[in-house]
Formats: sequence, C-alpha cells, structure tokens
Amino acid sequence: MFLTRSEYDRGVNTFSPEGRLFQIEYAIEAIKLGSTAIGIQTAEGIVLAVEKRITSPLMVSTSVEKIVEVDSHIGCAVSGLVADSRTMIDKARVEAQNYWFTYNEQMSVESVCQAVANLAIQFGEEDPDPGAMSRPFGVALLVAGIDEKGPQLFHMDPSGTYVQYDAKAIGSGSEGAQSSLQEVYHKSMTLKEALKSALTILKQVMEEKLNSTNVEVATITREKRFHMFSKEEVEEVIKDL
Amino acid sequence: MFLTRSEYDRGVNTFSPEGRLFQIEYAIEAIKLGSTAIGIQTAEGIVLAVEKRITSPLMVSTSVEKIVEVDSHIGCAVSGLVADSRTMIDKARVEAQNYWFTYNEQMSVESVCQAVANLAIQFGEEDPDPGAMSRPFGVALLVAGIDEKGPQLFHMDPSGTYVQYDAKAIGSGSEGAQSSLQEVYHKSMTLKEALKSALTILKQVMEEKLNSTNVEVATITREKRFHMFSKEEVEEVIKDL
Amino acid sequence: MFLTRSEYDRGVNTFSPEGRLFQIEYAIEAIKLGSTAIGIQTAEGIVLAVEKRITSPLMVSTSVEKIVEVDSHIGCAVSGLVADSRTMIDKARVEAQNYWFTYNEQMSVESVCQAVANLAIQFGEEDPDPGAMSRPFGVALLVAGIDEKGPQLFHMDPSGTYVQYDAKAIGSGSEGAQSSLQEVYHKSMTLKEALKSALTILKQVMEEKLNSTNVEVATITREKRFHMFSKEEVEEVIKDL
Amino acid sequence: MFLTRSEYDRGVNTFSPEGRLFQIEYAIEAIKLGSTAIGIQTAEGIVLAVEKRITSPLMVSTSVEKIVEVDSHIGCAVSGLVADSRTMIDKARVEAQNYWFTYNEQMSVESVCQAVANLAIQFGEEDPDPGAMSRPFGVALLVAGIDEKGPQLFHMDPSGTYVQYDAKAIGSGSEGAQSSLQEVYHKSMTLKEALKSALTILKQVMEEKLNSTNVEVATITREKRFHMFSKEEVEEVIKDL
Amino acid sequence: MFLTRSEYDRGVNTFSPEGRLFQIEYAIEAIKLGSTAIGIQTAEGIVLAVEKRITSPLMVSTSVEKIVEVDSHIGCAVSGLVADSRTMIDKARVEAQNYWFTYNEQMSVESVCQAVANLAIQFGEEDPDPGAMSRPFGVALLVAGIDEKGPQLFHMDPSGTYVQYDAKAIGSGSEGAQSSLQEVYHKSMTLKEALKSALTILKQVMEEKLNSTNVEVATITREKRFHMFSKEEVEEVIKDL
Amino acid sequence: MFLTRSEYDRGVNTFSPEGRLFQIEYAIEAIKLGSTAIGIQTAEGIVLAVEKRITSPLMVSTSVEKIVEVDSHIGCAVSGLVADSRTMIDKARVEAQNYWFTYNEQMSVESVCQAVANLAIQFGEEDPDPGAMSRPFGVALLVAGIDEKGPQLFHMDPSGTYVQYDAKAIGSGSEGAQSSLQEVYHKSMTLKEALKSALTILKQVMEEKLNSTNVEVATITREKRFHMFSKEEVEEVIKDL
Amino acid sequence: MFLTRSEYDRGVNTFSPEGRLFQIEYAIEAIKLGSTAIGIQTAEGIVLAVEKRITSPLMVSTSVEKIVEVDSHIGCAVSGLVADSRTMIDKARVEAQNYWFTYNEQMSVESVCQAVANLAIQFGEEDPDPGAMSRPFGVALLVAGIDEKGPQLFHMDPSGTYVQYDAKAIGSGSEGAQSSLQEVYHKSMTLKEALKSALTILKQVMEEKLNSTNVEVATITREKRFHMFSKEEVEEVIKDL
Repeated sequence: MFLTRSEYDRGVNTFSPEGRLFQIEYAIEAIKLGSTAIGIQTAEGIVLAVEKRITSPLMVSTSVEKIVEVDSHIGCAVSGLVADSRTMIDKARVEAQNYWFTYNEQMSVESVCQAVANLAIQFGEEDPDPGAMSRPFGVALLVAGIDEKGPQLFHMDPSGTYVQYDAKAIGSGSEGAQSSLQEVYHKSMTLKEALKSALTILKQVMEEKLNSTNVEVATITREKRFHMFSKEEVEEVIKDL
Repeated sequence: MFLTRSEYDRGVNTFSPEGRLFQIEYAIEAIKLGSTAIGIQTAEGIVLAVEKRITSPLMVSTSVEKIVEVDSHIGCAVSGLVADSRTMIDKARVEAQNYWFTYNEQMSVESVCQAVANLAIQFGEEDPDPGAMSRPFGVALLVAGIDEKGPQLFHMDPSGTYVQYDAKAIGSGSEGAQSSLQEVYHKSMTLKEALKSALTILKQVMEEKLNSTNVEVATITREKRFHMFSKEEVEEVIKDL
Repeated sequence: MFLTRSEYDRGVNTFSPEGRLFQIEYAIEAIKLGSTAIGIQTAEGIVLAVEKRITSPLMVSTSVEKIVEVDSHIGCAVSGLVADSRTMIDKARVEAQNYWFTYNEQMSVESVCQAVANLAIQFGEEDPDPGAMSRPFGVALLVAGIDEKGPQLFHMDPSGTYVQYDAKAIGSGSEGAQSSLQEVYHKSMTLKEALKSALTILKQVMEEKLNSTNVEVATITREKRFHMFSKEEVEEVIKDL
Repeated sequence: MFLTRSEYDRGVNTFSPEGRLFQIEYAIEAIKLGSTAIGIQTAEGIVLAVEKRITSPLMVSTSVEKIVEVDSHIGCAVSGLVADSRTMIDKARVEAQNYWFTYNEQMSVESVCQAVANLAIQFGEEDPDPGAMSRPFGVALLVAGIDEKGPQLFHMDPSGTYVQYDAKAIGSGSEGAQSSLQEVYHKSMTLKEALKSALTILKQVMEEKLNSTNVEVATITREKRFHMFSKEEVEEVIKDL
Repeated sequence: MFLTRSEYDRGVNTFSPEGRLFQIEYAIEAIKLGSTAIGIQTAEGIVLAVEKRITSPLMVSTSVEKIVEVDSHIGCAVSGLVADSRTMIDKARVEAQNYWFTYNEQMSVESVCQAVANLAIQFGEEDPDPGAMSRPFGVALLVAGIDEKGPQLFHMDPSGTYVQYDAKAIGSGSEGAQSSLQEVYHKSMTLKEALKSALTILKQVMEEKLNSTNVEVATITREKRFHMFSKEEVEEVIKDL
Repeated sequence: MFLTRSEYDRGVNTFSPEGRLFQIEYAIEAIKLGSTAIGIQTAEGIVLAVEKRITSPLMVSTSVEKIVEVDSHIGCAVSGLVADSRTMIDKARVEAQNYWFTYNEQMSVESVCQAVANLAIQFGEEDPDPGAMSRPFGVALLVAGIDEKGPQLFHMDPSGTYVQYDAKAIGSGSEGAQSSLQEVYHKSMTLKEALKSALTILKQVMEEKLNSTNVEVATITREKRFHMFSKEEVEEVIKDL
Repeated sequence: MFLTRSEYDRGVNTFSPEGRLFQIEYAIEAIKLGSTAIGIQTAEGIVLAVEKRITSPLMVSTSVEKIVEVDSHIGCAVSGLVADSRTMIDKARVEAQNYWFTYNEQMSVESVCQAVANLAIQFGEEDPDPGAMSRPFGVALLVAGIDEKGPQLFHMDPSGTYVQYDAKAIGSGSEGAQSSLQEVYHKSMTLKEALKSALTILKQVMEEKLNSTNVEVATITREKRFHMFSKEEVEEVIKDL
C-alpha cells in the first residue's frame, strides 16, 4: 500500500505517509560521513575540537578549516559538506555584524542560531531568502559563544533544529564520542579538563593517529574571546594526554 | 482502478479519488510522533502543559521550548516539527502586534488563529504569502488566550482547521490523554485543579518519569496574563500530584 | 488503450479521454464526506439548517461555524473542507461590500454566486486571481439571499457551477435528504413549515441524535434579514418536531 | 513503437506521433456529454434552441442559462461545461463593447468569433491572455448574429476553429439532429419554419419530454435584434408542433 | 539501449539519440492530414490553389479561408491546423505593415518568411516572443509574392525552415501533386498555363469532385497584385480543364 | 545499476553516471545528418565549400544558403539544422557590429567565436541570454576570417567548444573528407590549390554529382575580404577539377 | 528498499538515501575523462603543466588553451569540459579586477578560490548568480598564485571544495601522477626541479609522446609573475628530461 521509502526523496520537502521528511534524514546521513567534532561547555568557556582528514601527504593541512570565527564572541565547528557550511557561516557573520551596527551590542548566541535556522528551513521553497538551497544543508554545526547568559554550546542539524548541550559530538565518530562525553562530563569541569577530555575522546574515535596536523582546536572564553589554537598550543595539549 | 494510496502524495495539494488530501494526513502523522501537549480551559484561565523530550543527559533542558508567548494575553503550546512551528508563531506574533498598533486594543484569540490558518492553508500554492511552505506545516498548536469572550483554548491542525475545546491533548500520547481529560474535566474546574489534572495525565502518558526538567507549564489568566512556570513552581505542582 | 481512471488526477486541470475533469469529481467526493446541510426557499424567505459534527464532548460547539453571513441580505451554508470555504466566503463578502460602496445598493444573490464561481474555476491555472488554489475547492455552498427578485437559494459545487433550487441538500446525507425534500416541498410552504421540514429531514439523516448543540439554523427574510438562531430558538424548533 | 493513445494527454498541448492534439479531442468528448443545441440561419434571422437538463424537480429552470446575449445583434448558444462558457461569453461581450466604444459601429459576427478563438487557442501556454486556461475550453458555441453581411450562424469547437453553417447541431444529440437538419433545411426557409424545425428536431433527440421548462429558444432578427422567448412564447411554438 | 521513438515527444524541444526533434516530425504529420495546396511561380506571377473540405452540405463554403492576403504584394496558402495558421499570418501582416511604415517601401517576400520563421522556431522556449507556442505550429505555408527580385514562391514547414520553389504542393495530396508538378512545370510557363495546371493537379488528388465551392484560387501579379478569384472566375477556369 | 543510456536525455543539461552530457552528443548526431562543409586555411586566405542538398528539381537552389557573411572579414559555413544556425549567425553579426561601433576596429575571429560559444553553452538554463534555447544548437560551424593574426579557420560544435584548424570538414561526409584533407593539406598551399582540393574532396563525398547548383563556395582574403563565388566562378573551378 | 543509484541524478541537487549528491560524483567522472594537469608549489613559485590532446594533425595546437592567466599573480590549469571552465575563469578574472579597482591591492589566491566556489555551489538553484548552471561545472581547477602568504597551489573540484596542496595532479592520468608526485616532492624543491618533475610525470601518464606541441607549461613566480612558456622554452625543458 505504501511506496517504498526511497520514492519520496525526489519531492525535496514532502511528507512520507509516516510523516517523515526523507531529504532531511538523508542530509543527516551526509553528516555521518563527515569528520568528528566535539564541543564542551564549562563555566570558564567552551572548547571546540575537530578532526581534519588529510587524505594526501601533499595536502596543506592548514587550508582545511573546520572551526571558524563567527564574531569575536562566537565560534563554530562544522561536520559534513564543507562547501555548504560556508553559506551558513556567512549568514551567521552577516547577522552578527548587522546586529552590532544596529544596536551597538553583541548578538546573543541563540539569536545567531535562530538566524541560521531560518535559512536552513527554507530548502526547496519557491522564493526563499538569498542563500537558501533546493535541498537541506548537508552539514551539522556546533555553535559556541559567550553572551550575557554566559558560555553556551548549541547543536544545529540540517532540519534547522538547534538545542543547547553541555557537551556534544557530531560527525562519523559521534556515537562513541557522545557516550564518552556522558561519562566524563561534570558541571564543575575546568576549561583545561574540558580541553583534555575533548582531545582524548577525539583520539579514541579517529582512524588516523591524532597529531597537531590533523586536529583543530579553539576555545571561546571571556578573556581571550574566540581563540584558535596554534600548532604549538595543540602539541602542548596532546603532550599532556 | 485506483492508484494505491501512496501515489498521491507527490502532488502536494491534490485530491485523491476518495476526495482526500494525503499530504495533510501525512503531516498529521508527523504530529503523532511529537511530544504530548495538554491544554485545559477554566473560568479562571487556561493551563498549558507539555512534555519535553530530553534525549541526552547533556542536553540543556531549558533550551527546548514547547510553550511560547504570542502576546501578553495569548500563549501557544506546540507538538510536531519544532522548526516549522516557529514560522507559525512568528506569524501569530506579528499579526497580534500589528493589530495592537493599528487599533490600540488586543487581537482576539480567534482572530489570531484565523491569521495562522490563512498561512497554513496556502501550502503548495504558486504565489503564497511569505512564510507559507511547499508542504503542510508538520505541527499542531494549542492556542490559549483571554479576550473579551473570556478564556479560550483552540486546537489547530496542519489543515489550518481550528476548533475551540474545553480541554485538548495533542502529540504522541494524545489518544490516552484525551480520554483522561474527558473523564476529569468539568465546567466548574478551578485553575488549580486543571493544573493538577494536566500534569497527572501527562505523567500517565509520558515514557520518561515526569520531573521539573522534562515538562513545561504555563497559565494564561486575567491577573498574570501569560505566565511561564519556573522550575520551582513546576516542582511545587509535581509535589502535589 | 486508455489509462486507468485514476492516472489523470495529477494534471489537476486536464481532460481525461472521456472528456472528464477528475479533480473536480474527486473534490465532489470530499464533499460527500462533509456534514449535511439543507436549504429551503419559500415566499417569505429561506431556511438554512446544517449538521455540526461534535467529535468530542470537550469540543466547544459554538466554535464550529457551518452557516455564515455574507451580507445583511445573504447567508451561506457550507459542507466539505471547512478551511477551503473561508476563502470563498471572504471573496463573497469582499465583492458584496465593494458593490455596496460603488453603487450604494445591495449586490444581487446571483452576482455574488458569479463572483465566487470566477474564483472556483481558476484552480490549477498559472496566474490566477488571489485566493484561487492549485486544486478545486473541496466545498459545496448553499447561498441564500433576498434581493429584488425575492428570496433565492443557489447551490454551487466545486466546478463553479451554480444553479437555483427551491430546496437542496448537500453533504454526506444529501441523497436521502434530497428525496425527502422532493416529497415535502410545495410552492406555498410557509417559512415555519420549511423550518420544521428542514430539521425533521436533518434529524433523519444525522447519525447523532439531533439537539441544539449539533445543529445550526438560520433564516434570511425581508424583516430580519440574515438571522442566526440562538440555542434557545433552535431548541424551540426541535421541541415542535 | 508508439505509446498508446492515452499517454499523450498530460502534455496538454503536444502533438502525438500521428500529429494529433489529444486534449482537444478529449474536450470534444466533454461536449458530447452536453445538452443538445440547434441553430438555423434564414434570410429573416437566426433561430437558436437548446435543451435544458432539469435533473431535479426542485431545480429552478430559469436559472439554467444555455442561450445568452452577447450584444444586441449577437446571441450565443452553448453546450458542454457551463462554467467554461462564461469566460468565452465574457470575452465576446467585452470585445463587442470595446469595438462599439472605439468605432461607434457594431462588431461583425465573424470578428467576435475571431476574438473568442484567440482565447481558446492559447490553452496550456506560458503567458496567455487573461482568461485563457491550462486546458482547452470544454464547450462548443453556436454564435448567431446579424451584421452588414446579413444573418450568420457560426459554430466554434474547443480548438478555436469556427465555420459558418446554414444550420448546425451540437451536444449529445448532435449526430441525429444534424441529419434531420440536412433533410429539412432549404435556403428559402422562413424564420417561423426554422423555429418549428428546430423544436421538432430537439423533441426527437431529447430524452425528456420537451416542454416550456426544459427548452430555451431565442431569435436574432433585424427587427427584434436578440430576442429570448418567454415561457408563453415557447409554449405557443410547442403547441404548433 | 534506446527508448522507443515515441518516448521523446514529451520534452517538446529535445533531441532524440539519433539527433531528431520528434515534435517537429509529428507536426509535419499533422500537415499530412491537411487539405492539399498548390503554388506555381511563373515570370508573370504566382498561382495559389487550395482544396476546401466541405464536410457538411450545411457548411457555408466561403467561411473556410485557405488563402489569405498578407500585404498587397504577398499572399499565403495554408495547410494543417487552421487555428495555428492565424498567428503566423498575423505575424506576417504586422511585420509587413511595420516595414512599410518605417521604410516606406514594401517588405521583401523573403524577409516576411524570415519573420514568421523566427516565431516558428521558438516553440517550447521559456520566454518566447508573443505568439510563439509550447509546441511547433501544426501548419505548412506557401508564401507567394512579388518584390524587386520578381515573383517568388516559398515553402515553410513547422521547423521554420523556408525554401524557394518553382512549384510546390503541401497537404494530404502533396506527394502525388508534387510528382505531377515536376512533370508539367517548365520555366516559360504562362500564368494561365500555371492556373490550369494547378487546378488539373488538384482535381486529380482531391477525394471530392472539384467545383467552385470546394476550391480557392488566387494569383499574385504585378498588375493585379494579390487577387482572390471569385466563384465565377473559378468556374471559368474549371470549365477550361 | 545504471539506467540505460537514453534515459538521461530528458534533463537537457544533466550529467550521466559516466560524466557525459547526452543532449550534446545527440545534437552532434543531428549534424552527422547535415550536408558536408569543408574549410581550408592558407597563408593567402581561407576557402569554404559546402554541399547544398537540392531535394527537388523544382527547389530554387540559390534560396538555400549554407555560407554567410558575418562581417566583411569573417564568413561562416554551417551544417545541421538550418533554422538553428540563424540565431548563431545573428549573434555573431551583432557582436561584430557592436565591436566596430564601440572600438572602431574589427573584432578578432576568435572573439566572434567566443561570443557565439557563450550563447551555445547556455542551453537549458533558467534565465539565459536572448537567443539561447532549451536544447543545444543542432548545428556545427566553420568560422573563417582574417584579422591581425592572419587567416584563421575555427570549428565550433554544439557544446560551444571551438578549436582552430588548418583544414576541417563537418557534416554527413566529414569522416572521409577529413582523411582526404589530411592527405592533401600542406602549410604552403596556395588559395587556388585549396579551392581545388576543397571541391575535389566535396565531389568525392557527395551522393549527387557536384555541379554549380548544388555547391556553395566562398573565400576570405585580405584583398577581396569575404567573397561569395558566383555560379560562373564555381563552374570555372569545377571545370579545372 | 532503495532505488538503484542512478535514479537520483535527475534531481540535480538532491541527496540520495546514503547522503550523497550524485550529480557532483558524475561531474567528477567527467573530469576523469579530461586531459592530465599537474601543479607543484615550491618556495620560489608554482609550476603548472598540462597535456593537450591534439586529436587531428590539422588542429592548430596553440588554439587549445589549458592554462590561463587570471591576474598577473594568479594562473589556472583546467581539466574537464573546456566550455564550462570559461565561466569559472571569467568569474575569477572579474573578481580579481574588481578587488584591485576597489582596494588597490591584489586579491589573495584563497579569496579568488572562494569567489569561484560560490559560483560552483549554486548549480541547480532557482535564482542563482549570473554564470551558475543547472548542473555542476564539469571541470577541475588548479589555481596557482603568489600573494602575501607566498606561493600557493589550490585544487578545486565540481562541488566547490578547494584545498591547498604542495603538489597535485588532476584529469585522466591523475591517479598515477599523484603517486609519482608523492615520491618526488620535497619541501626544498627548486622551481627548476619542480618543472622537470612535472614534465617527467606528465610524460609517463600521457598516451601520446610528449612534445612541445601537446603540452602547455607556465610558472608563477615573484619575478616573472604569471609566465606562459613559449614553444622554445618548453622544448628546452623537454631536452633536459
């Protein structure tokens, strides 16, 4: 009586008889193929750590960006289709800038998430906002920032749904990483502990041996704001593991 | 002689030979997967109570919003695709604001419902109003408010049909919850009784054990207008069950 | 040599080899699922009576509107998809208002029907008037009014065809109700007799027991113009049956 | 090697391998389901006579219009989808009015036909004139009028092709009626003879017994211009049969 | 490995694997169903002669136009879908008029052909010129005229290709007629000989017996310019056969 | 696992799993059905020679144009769908004229090719430049011209790819003709030798016997610029073969 | 349960159930059919070397351009569909020029890549920027340039993803060439060594014997900026192999 599952995906934004939107589920599959990213929120700030896949020894590792600065108080780690994530990041940056110019104060982390979600939800529509696509974005985001509510970490999936987490893993190794995060996370974690935990867990789920070339680390704190770790800083953390 | 049922859902807004619109039926399926929400209307005001699904201990419960304020005299509980509900809530808020600015009085609860229904019904049309989608909204609403006609509770489904109820449950546990509501509801219920009944019934249909983290409660009354319960207020009610 | 019947319904406004428009036939099926409505035209005025389906004891009966006022001299009973009927009623109201403002006299009942038919016929067209849909309206109307030609009752179906009737039934019980109307109707019927006949017939075809909650009654007369019956007035009529 | 006939009808305006346009052929089928209409052209003027299908004794016969006035010198009988014919009649009326306002003389019957044909031929086009549809009009017309060339009777089919006839029948009984017309028609027929012939033939092909309620008659003559017969006038003609 | 031939015709303007455009080939089939038309070019001028299909004795022969005047120096005979040819003739007329108004001299016959071809080639395009259709025109033209280059006869098919001919036949009897033309044509033919040949050949290929009612004849000469033959003139030529 | 080859051609501009664009390959098939054209580039200038297909003895040979002047210094020979080539030639002419008016010097041959290629590549796009089609152009071009770089011959295929050649054949006889060209071509060829070679090879590959009626010849030289050969000049060359 | 792989490619920008975008994978197949290109980055500058496929001895080798100058400090080697690459190169040139005019300094190599990627990612969208196509670009780029960060070599594929490489091969021989590059490349390579390595590897993977006609070589250095090698310079390098 029903068509088989896969016959629904060509109407990009159409319900299946069970009330499901398959293109979003397929986009989530695209993310499961992506590199693993981990975020941990502490009282001092948030840690973001992402695996970089260096598929050739001749690839220049620093040109692969998995963590980017959205505004001085917000950073973002991505997993999935890299090219897709740029549109989302651009949206986030433009909205954050506009907010600053208009109100002369920094946009809240949640409002930035909402702005990106507005774009994500419009896939397949007739007259969407500029930047919206004919399919869902094939990318998951960890949006980390500090505003008046303190440090916050949000996870956004291709459906445009975003939820706050104390600690969250995305990408191909997310299942194992999330379990580990639940074991180690506690509310009174220091930023340093979080940094160590993030890399320890990343090390466990990565296929390649973790080193300062195939991992990217950043923190968002009240003092340093968004801070991308240098090769040396990353090596120092790895040494401690 | 007829195509099988499922071959109709790709023309999003087309009748089947039996005169049915399948995309709306499928959207209703999407809501059956949603979290349970309950609304009870009394002479003193309306109670809204919604289950929150906390799928991970690291998820920050307060970032999951199932009840929102539309205007100071109207609140709304949602079940289904969260991202979809935002467009509807925005529509409701904008219309309510515009009404206030234009006529200097508060928009009636029914008029707010009508405005949202106008948006919902346009799915799949060529040149719809901004916000309309290429498919039905995958969300059901409980719109609760107080205006000149007194406290009112409306239920709206993805077809844009809205009907007033004394008490109504939506979402995955709605079948059992609605039966319970019919048993306990009486016209002279106090707001306090309604509050207790709503949480008692929610407790019965939820898979997780009900606590102040996985439930959201709000009341709309003449005195307090829209009032979202704090963690402490929720705990107090739970204690009484 | 021919495709089976049901393969034509996806081109919403395309002839089948037999010269039929299936989407209109399917829309008519949607109406057969609707609640029964009855209209009777007499020399004194017109009676409209409609069944209301109260699917839950907690549903607020008065919020289900099956008879609406179009202008002070025209009323309309609907059967089928409630959300669809609103667009048609709005069209009728706006046209009636505009006519009044432009010519300072009331629009004739037939002209109001023509205006709504113009909208109904445009389904599936590329650049239709505002309000037209991508499918036929899933609703049938009984338009009743009084103008210079006296009391008139029109029936309009989803194809936009409207014809005047002395008495007409639509909706799920229309077949039996229409037979009964042919038996009881006579040209010299009084409004009171018509009122009694309408409710007697409605009582026969309704599954639920008829009472003042699950039926809506209105008359259009020269004296009272459009008059919606109060709960008490309905009860009085029922008592007489 | 060829698809079966019926697979072509979904591209509304596409040739089949044999060079046929099936949607037009299907529209012609729709007319074969319509009520029979007859036109006879004489030196004195033209007679139009059309069957009305009164499907219920409660239907008000006068509200079913099968013959309409286009201008004071032109009338039109229709068969097929009634709702479709209105757009064509409106086009004819507007063009005739505009011609009068611009040139201060009456539009020729053939020019009126050309104007309507221009609309009919545009079905399925991307940016048609207002009024054109996504499918052919499901209606045939008998356009009768008097201009400088004298009395003329034109037949137009859904393809927009129009040809002048001395006498022509359309609709469900057209085959038998046309044969009869060929037998009785002669160039020196008087209008009265034509009137009698038209109704005699209509009587033969109608399923119902012909009476003044289920037939519509009009003449276009130099003296009376377009003249619709009253119930009494029709009865008088019937008496003479 | 290939789809069967007929599966290509729904993309109206798409190549088949063999590099063919089937819709044009199908349109050519439509012309093969049309009435036969013959054109002969002589030093004195051009003759056009076309069969008229009088399908009913009550059809008014003069209302069927197969030869039309484009400008005083250009005539055009058509075969195929009559309604389609009107758009092409209108285009030709408008272009010829515009040329005259702009340059104060008559447009050349070839330029008129080019203008019509520009319209014909645009079928199925997104934003075509006004008058272009969603399918090829189902009509072939014989464009005959006299300009500075002397008398010229062009043949245009649905692909918009036009080529000059000394003598050319189109329509259902074109195959036999073209063979006959090759036998009888010689460069020093007089207009009178051409006239006789055209009708002799038409007589051979027509199913009906040729008479002054079912044939249309015109000449384009330096003296008389475009000249449509009267019934008497046609009869005179037929007498001579 | 793969669809068969031919199922890709309906999405006009979509890759097949092997990375091929079938509509372009099919368009190239259309050219293989076209008449043969040959171009030879020498230090003195370029020779273009094209077969004309005279399918009927009554066809006027001079009305079939296979070689056209783009600008006084550029000529173009075409093979394939004649009606398509006109849009490309028009584009080339307009661009060449605009360049002259803007810069007061002649456009280079390569720039003219680039301008036409820009048009060719846009087939099937949503908002193309005027003149672009919904399918590839079914035509190949030999663009020959003289500019500051000296005499140049370019070949352009339906994909919009253009490459310079010393000598190139296109159309139905191109395979054999190209082999012959490789044998006879040498860098020090005179224009006269090239002329003779072009016609000798054309003679070999043509089905009909080559004569001054079924061949078109042109040269582009510094002295005579674009020069189309008269019937007498062609005959003189043929005599020499 | 799943459709076979190839049924997804017709929705050009739609996820498969596994989260893949097949049109991009198919476009990558198109590149595997392209000519091999190699880029090597050294401290002194970057070497680009590309195979040219001369399919006929009469083809003019210099008219086949596989390496182009984007700006005086940036060059680009392409492999795949040549006609597609022109749009991308034009985009790169225009952006680089605009940057210069606006800021009076040269655009960074990465920013140029970003600009081209923005165009590439928009395939299949409704209202893309000018130049975007209905399918992915069928071309891979090696973008080489020198800016404040020193010499850099980027590889961009049809998905719009670009990554920096020390040395990279694309096209039909890329697999073997990339292996060889990994063997010979070292960080302290001189430009001369890189030049020799590039041609040695190209020689190995090319089917034809490498010579100065079927290879194109360019360097981007601080001194000479973008420098395309002349036939003599190429021969000199080949002599040294």
